[in-house]
Amino acid sequence: MMGTHCIFSANSLPISPRFNSKDLLAEKQWPWRYGLSTRPMNVRLRARAGLEGDKSLEIPHQWYNLIADLPVKPPPPLHPKTHEPVKPEDLSPLFAQELIKQEVTSDRFIDIPDEVRDVYSLWRPTPLIRARRLEKLLDTPARIYYKYEGVSPAGSHKPNSAVPQAWYNVQEGIKNVVTETGAGQWGSALAFACSIFGLGCEVWQVAASYDSKPYRRLMMQTWGAKVHSSPSMITESGKRILQEDPSSPGSLGIAISEAVEVAAKNADTKYCLGSVLNHVLLHQTVIGEECIKQMEALGETPDVIIGCTGGGSNFAGLSFPFIREKLKKKINPVIRAVEPTACPSLTKGVYRYDYGDTAGMTPLMKMHTLGHDFVPDPIHAGGLRYHGMAPLLSHIYELGFMDAISIPQTECFHGAIQFARSEGLIPAPEPTHAIAATIREALHCKETGEAKVILTAMCGHGHFDLTSYEKYLQETESSDILLLEVAPQFRNSNTWWCEDKIDQNKQRYTNQELSYHYHFTENSKPVSIHNYREASQREASSNSSAKHTH
Amino acid sequence: MMGTHCIFSANSLPISPRFNSKDLLAEKQWPWRYGLSTRPMNVRLRARAGLEGDKSLEIPHQWYNLIADLPVKPPPPLHPKTHEPVKPEDLSPLFAQELIKQEVTSDRFIDIPDEVRDVYSLWRPTPLIRARRLEKLLDTPARIYYKYEGVSPAGSHKPNSAVPQAWYNVQEGIKNVVTETGAGQWGSALAFACSIFGLGCEVWQVAASYDSKPYRRLMMQTWGAKVHSSPSMITESGKRILQEDPSSPGSLGIAISEAVEVAAKNADTKYCLGSVLNHVLLHQTVIGEECIKQMEALGETPDVIIGCTGGGSNFAGLSFPFIREKLKKKINPVIRAVEPTACPSLTKGVYRYDYGDTAGMTPLMKMHTLGHDFVPDPIHAGGLRYHGMAPLLSHIYELGFMDAISIPQTECFHGAIQFARSEGLIPAPEPTHAIAATIREALHCKETGEAKVILTAMCGHGHFDLTSYEKYLQETESSDILLLEVAPQFRNSNTWWCEDKIDQNKQRYTNQELSYHYHFTENSKPVSIHNYREASQREASSNSSAKHTH
Repeated sequence: MMGTHCIFSANSLPISPRFNSKDLLAEKQWPWRYGLSTRPMNVRLRARAGLEGDKSLEIPHQWYNLIADLPVKPPPPLHPKTHEPVKPEDLSPLFAQELIKQEVTSDRFIDIPDEVRDVYSLWRPTPLIRARRLEKLLDTPARIYYKYEGVSPAGSHKPNSAVPQAWYNVQEGIKNVVTETGAGQWGSALAFACSIFGLGCEVWQVAASYDSKPYRRLMMQTWGAKVHSSPSMITESGKRILQEDPSSPGSLGIAISEAVEVAAKNADTKYCLGSVLNHVLLHQTVIGEECIKQMEALGETPDVIIGCTGGGSNFAGLSFPFIREKLKKKINPVIRAVEPTACPSLTKGVYRYDYGDTAGMTPLMKMHTLGHDFVPDPIHAGGLRYHGMAPLLSHIYELGFMDAISIPQTECFHGAIQFARSEGLIPAPEPTHAIAATIREALHCKETGEAKVILTAMCGHGHFDLTSYEKYLQETESSDILLLEVAPQFRNSNTWWCEDKIDQNKQRYTNQELSYHYHFTENSKPVSIHNYREASQREASSNSSAKHTH
Repeated sequence: MMGTHCIFSANSLPISPRFNSKDLLAEKQWPWRYGLSTRPMNVRLRARAGLEGDKSLEIPHQWYNLIADLPVKPPPPLHPKTHEPVKPEDLSPLFAQELIKQEVTSDRFIDIPDEVRDVYSLWRPTPLIRARRLEKLLDTPARIYYKYEGVSPAGSHKPNSAVPQAWYNVQEGIKNVVTETGAGQWGSALAFACSIFGLGCEVWQVAASYDSKPYRRLMMQTWGAKVHSSPSMITESGKRILQEDPSSPGSLGIAISEAVEVAAKNADTKYCLGSVLNHVLLHQTVIGEECIKQMEALGETPDVIIGCTGGGSNFAGLSFPFIREKLKKKINPVIRAVEPTACPSLTKGVYRYDYGDTAGMTPLMKMHTLGHDFVPDPIHAGGLRYHGMAPLLSHIYELGFMDAISIPQTECFHGAIQFARSEGLIPAPEPTHAIAATIREALHCKETGEAKVILTAMCGHGHFDLTSYEKYLQETESSDILLLEVAPQFRNSNTWWCEDKIDQNKQRYTNQELSYHYHFTENSKPVSIHNYREASQREASSNSSAKHTH
């Protein structure tokens, strides 16, 4: 008894490229895996450093405004009371003048101020990396590239807009900016940007996240921002909520109301938003502009471009410059938005005028919406839990320039683990949606034999989301353990040599550890290790003379 | 009353470069701040991308072995029992053959395998960044450069050695590697490397950290490593400790003993170490080799090179290639190690043979040591809490090629906050020592007027150490609040407009928040906000007609 013995069901997709040393010795020359044959290695390095030939890739000098090239202009936002198109002056209590200009302009390109480019240079150009190890793991003929925005100080693409927003506010004599944040991606980006320019920053963070996810809050505080748990007693809207429910966990809608209220009441204070609006999408186009040049330098043309969508800023940032090239008929990639099945604004929402916030204080925007009172399930990808979609993105979806799918959370985390264990980077819960869709496409290529070029947006790292990974691993890995044998030196103890069915990772476990790490209980699937041990002992004694005697 | 009113003492050094918008409008052309005058911006970008002229900076092809160039060879390690010099075969139960070769070689350069360079290319070359905003904040004529290793997937310099260690073990048919880790920097680096090459990885993490710092543990588990709380019931040494003290918090020494025991007992399992040994220091020289080329590309020659030291791998990695150039008389920088005053092995330790671990199981190494039974105070920089210093580093310190200082934790975190709020990156607690020493040097330059070039090692980010920042901020910022006025809209409430004396960050606070965030109590220095409010009300009424009536 006690030989190799699969007791649990296993997932069909491999999680990690586990090569044993024999493979490595035998296939030492794997040229394609290490990029040594089809291209010399330094081409890959150059792609990473963003170089074409002998020229360095510069940070773009201009943001790109897709509106200039659209055959049909997007419908205007409407005043929430008059239902007339919003005038720029309606927005001036909340936003800096230059940002309002950018919100309504039809100019094709907007110059990026030198001061903003200088801050961008802390992390831009961001790397474009070919996911060779993921390709190997999936055994796909597709070539997968990801543009990695997690190298920014705040760890996501959000500083691309936070930096110019802070800069323009400082230019116009503003002393403080206020904003809302959920898990803290946007709040930390704005705190970083304000810290660089010496601008005061106040963030209302949804109470549930403020309490349960302290790390991004601490990051904001380290950068000198003042972070309030929302609802707070500082604003009338916050007070009203707390009077009704002193233990309210808050919501993004409430936090927006609080920040907007403070901006409206203070002449030296403006409000900043991290997604949805035209000027935010505009700022994010540095991603796509860099990426076009990086792909050119590699001699590659994307067949499929994939990004996750919450409010839409990351997806627009990567795709809009490529849509420009598509409109010029230079390229013809499929452009695909991926959203969580828990919050499917593009795939299940209705295209109509709706409010941007829960309370109905913002202008009415024509967008794909699940209704401003829609409350999505609490999924890990907090950044994708928004009832609507950027009006500009909704518009181009209606024009047929892109498609959209939704993917459930479990598939996303499965893909994320595959990605982390092959490529080495741990994605934030949001881009796991883009990764899962990329894997779907790559496996489709495997079936059809097509060597498609897939480009995806890895918009942030998951350093502050590791508890989400813990929950996923606890929930899923319990079914994927293969008991190999009792380790010889512990034959009389409760220690087992086990192998993870998915990744063939052989490790020692005590009963206690198995039940702790993998939540083996009487109720968990498919059997508890304790039961197994008893069962196997019964089996061993019924077989009377066991085959193996260790 | 209620006007600008400094009630608390302030620290003498500014924390952040706070410019009000008037400054910005007036000094829009700050050329040196944004790097627009002395050099065109793309020179800075090229420095970041590591380019010289039109040639790209490649990842080094070889590691550099300083031993080859030393006038006196370092004393050999001794067998713990025989006290004879250790033979390579003594080490073979624990380490891969190739790593043992590298440990004892006198060859000047060792080729880096293509497979290792390919993994390096995920984050290397790492950026060399000029800290212009920190220079501005300190008002120093010095030019400060930092080499940033936090861009690696594990967030520190540790993968530079973890990747080759994993690779050589795989090459030699090893199935699993084991190691110990404290806060988790080294453990996560090894977990990442093993995940890439499909090697099993088991980490014994000091129980105190395992429980209190879950994020790096979760990172290791996400990469598929098995993490044990040490002491564990899996090993004889662990069991022995737990029998004596079932609630033992563990120590690095105990964790080393557990990992070494498992490696010694299993033919398919080897042990890996993250610092101290020659081959680890060797692997880290990619940092310095890249940096030499980056400095050359910028036309700069370092006058002072500063790094933090725990076991010594990060410091050696940056400095050894520069020491080679110094020995050739090409350059003559001051080379300075910085250690915590809580664990001053170079500045207060004795240069003698001592054990590498607490239990005395390792070979005896000639090194600067505080004694292998020394237990440093629990400081935030867990990575610097080691009783000894790398024998090779100890040797060159004796030869006079470098100097060393120690800096207390509070000064380090003060420097870290200055750095984070000007440069935008949050350092791990370990490199805050290098940053604090850099700031000392830069302020010295301010006094003397010297425009020295200071090069420092920013060896990792602090994403998983934010609770350390929280503690620092809570302890120190309480004394640095300037009460400005009651915000007009809250005149009848308990809300105050306050300004952080240090960074001039103006924000609203309620009494409650002040007492929560800044731990204002009757006992805290120098006065509680409640006392202040009463005092100021008394003052207001004694002034009878207040000057301002808001």
